[in-house]
Amino acid sequence: MNFSSKLLENAVAEFAKLPGVGQKTALRLVLHLLNQDKEEVERFGSAVTKLRNEILYCSVCNNISDHVVCEICSSNKRDQATICIVEDTRDVMAIENTNQFTGVYHVLGGLISPMDGVGPADLDIDSLVARVASGGTKEVIFALSATMEGDTTIFYLNKRLKDFNISISTIARGIAFGGELEYVDEITLGRSIATRVPYENSLSR
Amino acid sequence: MNFSSKLLENAVAEFAKLPGVGQKTALRLVLHLLNQDKEEVERFGSAVTKLRNEILYCSVCNNISDHVVCEICSSNKRDQATICIVEDTRDVMAIENTNQFTGVYHVLGGLISPMDGVGPADLDIDSLVARVASGGTKEVIFALSATMEGDTTIFYLNKRLKDFNISISTIARGIAFGGELEYVDEITLGRSIATRVPYENSLSR
Ligand SMILES: [Zn+2]
Ligand SMILES: [Zn+2]
Repeated sequence: MNFSSKLLENAVAEFAKLPGVGQKTALRLVLHLLNQDKEEVERFGSAVTKLRNEILYCSVCNNISDHVVCEICSSNKRDQATICIVEDTRDVMAIENTNQFTGVYHVLGGLISPMDGVGPADLDIDSLVARVASGGTKEVIFALSATMEGDTTIFYLNKRLKDFNISISTIARGIAFGGELEYVDEITLGRSIATRVPYENSLSR
Repeated sequence: MNFSSKLLENAVAEFAKLPGVGQKTALRLVLHLLNQDKEEVERFGSAVTKLRNEILYCSVCNNISDHVVCEICSSNKRDQATICIVEDTRDVMAIENTNQFTGVYHVLGGLISPMDGVGPADLDIDSLVARVASGGTKEVIFALSATMEGDTTIFYLNKRLKDFNISISTIARGIAFGGELEYVDEITLGRSIATRVPYENSLSR
């Protein structure tokens, strides 16, 4: 592209780094911002940098939080003995929306994916094992996407967790194989948590 | 959505204000930025605010520029007597990419659209008329989208400009009716500038 301004070119280049945003879309978004009030654009820019600079990850469950311990982990209305294991914060949001789950979470920060070079050490797995080892946990529920990566992660975590005296279950597969958890509708997702099955059973089907 | 963090919620809300960006896409983009280095996110935020705060519009042609007079308007390699009238900076970029045009531009900043409440006074039309009135212009070429708004704008501008001793043409309609100029391929666009027709002729077809 033939930019008439370096400032414009830089802003477009930054937007075009975002996933799924091509050069033309980036230009459209930047020109939109250019038409907004300065205060509005300032708000946009600072919301992003403030988030990155000030964000915390809950020291218990690893979810994105504004506090050292998140609201769910510090709530006495939540069953702290039941841990739902998810890939990222979008899955916490999706499950919270169902109003079907009263336990707590553990956010892995990804799924094991040898293809993408993501191994167990890249995820918050040791902190989960330490959390379970410290006692008080009765059940862990795997709520991971029904993909190869999700299944690999469950297989690995089950090995790490099975010798503790806890029950291990996966959410029921109302989810089509290959389905991404975050796109599942709330009813299906809520029901699949309610009808979760012991992990060992889920293997034999 | 059920955000675990106000900072996250704010950043997503800002992204979701962008045209064509829904809540889910906004969340995906924000989480992507959250996974980048702080310096990278700082660069993103400041590129946007810097653009908005420091951008200039060329005092001659109204195109986005880093200088008071843009590089095209101040170049002695460009034919300053031939003015190509366009809607916005994307059209300048598209035409420059064709390498078919050696004249200069005038950026209107939009098209007349009674439906959207955009009238002649909202566009940089008076400055165009003053520019032509000051002398030195031999030809103006309308390179506007082949839409109702484009045609309305040409009709209005032709009335304002026809009494000056200049030739007035429109780019040839290789463009399908209803086509947005910015999506036209370079070859078609270049050719349609080369085969431009006097405005009066274009009406009688
Ligand atoms: Zn927590
Ligand atoms: Zn200029």
